[in-house]
Amino acid sequence: MIVALAGGVGAAKLLLGLTQVVRPEQVAIICNTGDDIELFGLRICPDLDTVTYTLSGVVNPETGWGLKGDTFQCLDNLGNYGGETWFRLGDRDLATHLWRTHLLHQGFTLMQVTERMRSAFGVRSQLIPMTNEYTPTRILIDGGELHLQEYLVREQCRPRVRGLKYSHMEQARPTSGIEQLILTAEAVLICPSNPFISIGPILAVPGIMGFLHRTPAPVVAVSPIICGRALKGPAANMLQQLGHAVSARGVAEIYRNLVDVFVLDEQDANLAEEIEDLGMRVGVMDTVMNTTEEKVKLARRILELT
Amino acid sequence: MIVALAGGVGAAKLLLGLTQVVRPEQVAIICNTGDDIELFGLRICPDLDTVTYTLSGVVNPETGWGLKGDTFQCLDNLGNYGGETWFRLGDRDLATHLWRTHLLHQGFTLMQVTERMRSAFGVRSQLIPMTNEYTPTRILIDGGELHLQEYLVREQCRPRVRGLKYSHMEQARPTSGIEQLILTAEAVLICPSNPFISIGPILAVPGIMGFLHRTPAPVVAVSPIICGRALKGPAANMLQQLGHAVSARGVAEIYRNLVDVFVLDEQDANLAEEIEDLGMRVGVMDTVMNTTEEKVKLARRILELT
Repeated sequence: MIVALAGGVGAAKLLLGLTQVVRPEQVAIICNTGDDIELFGLRICPDLDTVTYTLSGVVNPETGWGLKGDTFQCLDNLGNYGGETWFRLGDRDLATHLWRTHLLHQGFTLMQVTERMRSAFGVRSQLIPMTNEYTPTRILIDGGELHLQEYLVREQCRPRVRGLKYSHMEQARPTSGIEQLILTAEAVLICPSNPFISIGPILAVPGIMGFLHRTPAPVVAVSPIICGRALKGPAANMLQQLGHAVSARGVAEIYRNLVDVFVLDEQDANLAEEIEDLGMRVGVMDTVMNTTEEKVKLARRILELT
Repeated sequence: MIVALAGGVGAAKLLLGLTQVVRPEQVAIICNTGDDIELFGLRICPDLDTVTYTLSGVVNPETGWGLKGDTFQCLDNLGNYGGETWFRLGDRDLATHLWRTHLLHQGFTLMQVTERMRSAFGVRSQLIPMTNEYTPTRILIDGGELHLQEYLVREQCRPRVRGLKYSHMEQARPTSGIEQLILTAEAVLICPSNPFISIGPILAVPGIMGFLHRTPAPVVAVSPIICGRALKGPAANMLQQLGHAVSARGVAEIYRNLVDVFVLDEQDANLAEEIEDLGMRVGVMDTVMNTTEEKVKLARRILELT
């Protein structure tokens, strides 16, 4: 089994490639839920949904999240009531959040709900929320803090990030099955996701770091930073604002003592040596994934390293 | 103040007329909530919404409920998850239920939520749920019982009705303000709504019947039955199956000792005498309301009787 630690859009792209290189059933995805948010009483799990929608081919290809061709009638009307509309909930997408919330209220765990969703969408890989607990990531800014989604979506990543808080994480436990999956994995893949807000929360779930240290499987991370920039999202900003090198090397440092192999874009080949000095093997390849072919090719080349 | 006891579509039509004959602010509507239902964890109040949507001019004119031009994307997708889709929740309409449920979970009462909704829709009459408690009407059928909406919508009124149960009604209290409104009313109007499932639950709220007996205001009821048939819904079926005369007289008997004036359609003029024998004054007029003019005319003629 190949075990992937995944955030949202970037991870979903690589997973789409990976599940064409190996059988989807051979892939187990441990997904970030630190980006979960409760809005209008609904539990929204953006990363879980992005992975589900992408792997089942129904994702909105223009945004990388949400459903293809979705409409926003309900949200518009919520706005008329004075509700906040910065989080773009589509009408069809809303069914996911309503159904999930309904099942959670009935006493199902997030894992059980995710399993039903996965099955409803015909996703054949295992999809596992990192924990069943609600552990929203908080972004510390000057004079206060924001929910991650407030920072990302409402504030469009404008506030300077002073720190992060993985809230309620002390009480969280890894979802059942994660220990076994990591310990018996053929390889563990850390997807090209933001190390602070996508991978960081997964690593912060008490226990998971220990499983990664104990597993005999190679742990391979793919840099989400190319030429000092993130293809999507605030990873570069966060590296800078939190005092890291704004480069693939900065990411590699964060993963030091955890990752065995670090995958670097060929445009950053010059960083290979200094990253090797951190005690990792380095793979250099084209990591930009625009087409399906590029996704498949990247997945194949990553597997060759393990 | 004219106080109206109201169910859904029929009541809303008359109220639309009434609020053109007197100032909308002079009308207080005590609305049935026995038809409320919880679906997907959302509190849905069909009669409250029908009255609100109708008085604000946004109701779907083809059905008499729901919002004009609404879409059903979310519901379709809920169906894909295995959710029940017999209750037609439109995307824009869903915002009402989401917002209401969210506010109720925050601790607002149904009265407070209804007040916000009324205000958001620019409805100028007072709109008051009969009680803040959740008291769904149950329909007793052979071998079991159904939620009212299951009977009305899912089962399309096919099962034979053996009885009704206004559930949780013992603990319910009339919404604050209802006593004062009824006792100081200029007139109390029982709208042409189903006596069992629209008006019955209001009268079953402990205390409300007493207010109606004590008020010096005339209590005027409009028959929902014309020529032995209901213009909409299962009133005629229910009269028959519950052992009443299937006529305006059957309705008048139910309202005996409560109603001072009974308004009869001119097609039922022959029933006037026997209804007067029940101890009511009778008004005979055209009670069919297809056009706005007919709604206004009926409201005006009813007021002339008080």
